[in-house]
Amino acid sequence: MGSARQERAILTRKALIRAAAEVFDESGFAGASISRILQRAGMTAGALYFHFSSKEDLAKAVMNAQPGTIVPLLDSEGLQQLVDITLIWARRLQTDPLLRAGVRLTGEQETFGMRDSTPYQEWSQVMEECLRVAQHKGELQAGVEPWELAELLVESCTGMQMYAAAKSCRADLPDRVVRMWRLLLPGVAVPAVVARTEVNPTRAMPIGEAVAPAGPSD
Amino acid sequence: MGSARQERAILTRKALIRAAAEVFDESGFAGASISRILQRAGMTAGALYFHFSSKEDLAKAVMNAQPGTIVPLLDSEGLQQLVDITLIWARRLQTDPLLRAGVRLTGEQETFGMRDSTPYQEWSQVMEECLRVAQHKGELQAGVEPWELAELLVESCTGMQMYAAAKSCRADLPDRVVRMWRLLLPGVAVPAVVARTEVNPTRAMPIGEAVAPAGPSD
Repeated sequence: MGSARQERAILTRKALIRAAAEVFDESGFAGASISRILQRAGMTAGALYFHFSSKEDLAKAVMNAQPGTIVPLLDSEGLQQLVDITLIWARRLQTDPLLRAGVRLTGEQETFGMRDSTPYQEWSQVMEECLRVAQHKGELQAGVEPWELAELLVESCTGMQMYAAAKSCRADLPDRVVRMWRLLLPGVAVPAVVARTEVNPTRAMPIGEAVAPAGPSD
Repeated sequence: MGSARQERAILTRKALIRAAAEVFDESGFAGASISRILQRAGMTAGALYFHFSSKEDLAKAVMNAQPGTIVPLLDSEGLQQLVDITLIWARRLQTDPLLRAGVRLTGEQETFGMRDSTPYQEWSQVMEECLRVAQHKGELQAGVEPWELAELLVESCTGMQMYAAAKSCRADLPDRVVRMWRLLLPGVAVPAVVARTEVNPTRAMPIGEAVAPAGPSD
């Protein structure tokens, strides 16, 4: 009984974050009202305030849900897995409201009086983990520190999605990810790994399109 | 006579951009009022509307004034000049309201209904020019396209100042620039250039501190 209630609470919380993400994605923090978020979620104010103390608190939860949206269901490892994560991220950012809202709020946070580096740090951690595996497998050049490269990748991805949003509504984001890796890899990976690492936007397809059922091949 | 009037108009426009930058830097786009900008500039609404049609128009001018704030008074060339520009930019961003406001507005522009990639493209052009010189001097590795590397640098710098703003109020921005170059250079520059290029925050000092008069040495 207790665990069924707990499960319901988790589902409610998730549904609220999802609804909030959609509204934040459409209207930004200032333009999103609690009543519109409740309407979108089909819930009462009571349910919302049980989980979140304020709109700021809800925005923070959306911001910090970002890395969780990209589940590495990949069989790749090390550097290749990291490349795959960035390719999937670029593709998802074109359509996934949770990821889009997280990115938008992180960039806009100063306008609502927040300075939270957690979203950057969480991405950095995900990337550092891949790079530690890469280092263990001998994929990285001597002197390349996993945490330093992880930070640079987070910085580059953050900036490239902003540039792509302003220039092409993010249509050219996957190409930017490819260019980043082509320029970065030779300086950080050993030659054999540079040669075998696949940096191709189509690697993001299986997971990027996972929402749609697989059609018959023709 | 005509030219004296023109000169006055240019000075008025500059003073308005400067005052607007200070207010935008402090309060963002939404928090900045025209009346506060006029008060700061010590000017009338008539003067403002002669030069700018709206607050949006003024914000655009501030956004696009960014690269002009870093005058390359440097005797360095090619890659070293580009490194110096990023080091000066990192230092200036800690104190120069025009640069800070430009960066803030560029990031916040979606909140006031703008999507302008001009600031990114202008930075990109400045960097591409340095890289074309570098290529001409044989500093770049074969296959490194100046425009591609310029875009990646703009993306990385954009993201790193956001990360640094959230994490340390930009105190660690110069260190982030140094880390970026240490990771990028080996993959894009020929070995002799990697060895001789100086990537040290103190290179930004002479220009970064140019506002203050030189004190007597002790």
